[in-house]
Amino acid sequence: MVTPDNALLPAEPLSPAEREGVYRAILTRRDVRGQFRPDPVPDAVLSRVLIAAHHAPSVGFMQPWSFLLLRDAAVKRRVHDLFLTANAEAAAMFPAEQQALYRSLKLEGIMEAPINLCVTCDPDRAGPVVIGRTHIREMDEYSTVCAVQNLWLAARAEGLGVGWVSILDRDALRRTLGIPEPIVPVAYLCLGWVEGYHRQPELAAAGWRQRLPVEQVLHFDRWGGGEGAATLLDRVRDDAQAVAEGRFLDERL
Amino acid sequence: MVTPDNALLPAEPLSPAEREGVYRAILTRRDVRGQFRPDPVPDAVLSRVLIAAHHAPSVGFMQPWSFLLLRDAAVKRRVHDLFLTANAEAAAMFPAEQQALYRSLKLEGIMEAPINLCVTCDPDRAGPVVIGRTHIREMDEYSTVCAVQNLWLAARAEGLGVGWVSILDRDALRRTLGIPEPIVPVAYLCLGWVEGYHRQPELAAAGWRQRLPVEQVLHFDRWGGGEGAATLLDRVRDDAQAVAEGRFLDERL
Repeated sequence: MVTPDNALLPAEPLSPAEREGVYRAILTRRDVRGQFRPDPVPDAVLSRVLIAAHHAPSVGFMQPWSFLLLRDAAVKRRVHDLFLTANAEAAAMFPAEQQALYRSLKLEGIMEAPINLCVTCDPDRAGPVVIGRTHIREMDEYSTVCAVQNLWLAARAEGLGVGWVSILDRDALRRTLGIPEPIVPVAYLCLGWVEGYHRQPELAAAGWRQRLPVEQVLHFDRWGGGEGAATLLDRVRDDAQAVAEGRFLDERL
Repeated sequence: MVTPDNALLPAEPLSPAEREGVYRAILTRRDVRGQFRPDPVPDAVLSRVLIAAHHAPSVGFMQPWSFLLLRDAAVKRRVHDLFLTANAEAAAMFPAEQQALYRSLKLEGIMEAPINLCVTCDPDRAGPVVIGRTHIREMDEYSTVCAVQNLWLAARAEGLGVGWVSILDRDALRRTLGIPEPIVPVAYLCLGWVEGYHRQPELAAAGWRQRLPVEQVLHFDRWGGGEGAATLLDRVRDDAQAVAEGRFLDERL
């Protein structure tokens, strides 16, 4: 039977295994800084994660993203120098009692990761007036971030690691990579095979900051409102507990 | 055997079915505006998509997001009024020859969707100096967008629809929902069961704008560079073609 092109696809849940894959990717994805392996990423794998990124949602379907893949060690070295400069500036911004811990953290894997990827946003890609960007100017950068998160989850599905390096001066990065104005470098990612994934975010393991109780970030019907939502709140708390104890995928789907 | 807490989890690809689920969610996710069904979303399902959002990456692990769930028709009505005002302003911004098409597009499902969800960013959540936000101030909003995209993909895995309504004045929205300064309403989402998913983005089907050839958004080693990447470029083009023809999940994983 030929399905006409305008027919809707059935809005069914994914199969149990596929749905579990989505949650597993989300819950086990990590920001990887220190476990990159040097072996090359095959084109077939790299292509799939780029396809995932390119199929992100975007405001007015403008698809403002570009992906600048960097594999040349000399280019990575120049970006790493920018990181060192910015990171020294950053360390000095913290209170004295936090600086030793800050300096002990590994915050990037620029040289070790076989692939660096600068994800940019072109605000002019769809002309001056963009559907959905008329009132919130940042929507094009937000769309670009959706592409980053798609790529990150696809990379996790493939067994790759991704780390987002944000301690960089964006103007200096633009000059270093030859990115013309007004294109914005939104994300600088390190990508590659990894030795393993940390069980929890490294900043939590290092004692810097812990995961927030999920009920603290929920409001109902008005800011600060929680009336009538007790059942949902209980459920979310139980789910969060199951995640923390590694039981979510087995017990809560 | 007890695994110590600091041991790395193996960085293996997800199982084939799980990996397929990640790509299926990414490729079939749609921005839903007009196909919402009124039946309620069970707490168990709603909880899972919120858990997915809460486990997004965030700069300095600050987790700046909050989720304001709106189910009260009177509240939704007030937001819908804000949309009508903004959308009339927006329509007038387009060239005369585009205005009729613009006005014919359905751009939100605020009243039809059983749940509206305002996702906010609190820039003060982790104190004034945040690891990784020292040089790119927007990183906290970017983190919040990662939470939105996690939620969107989890919702697709559950068979739900999500639409992002960005044609809203943010200050007016903040006042309407009682969101205090300096918290930023980053995304206003409509969420619910849907009649079905469109095969392609509605703006493409409406002839407004088409998906960009993926090779146009790829650069290698420097902006505009493509040398030495022919094999990867061919692969990405083939993958994109397979997506367009609905063969990707069967043939390219």
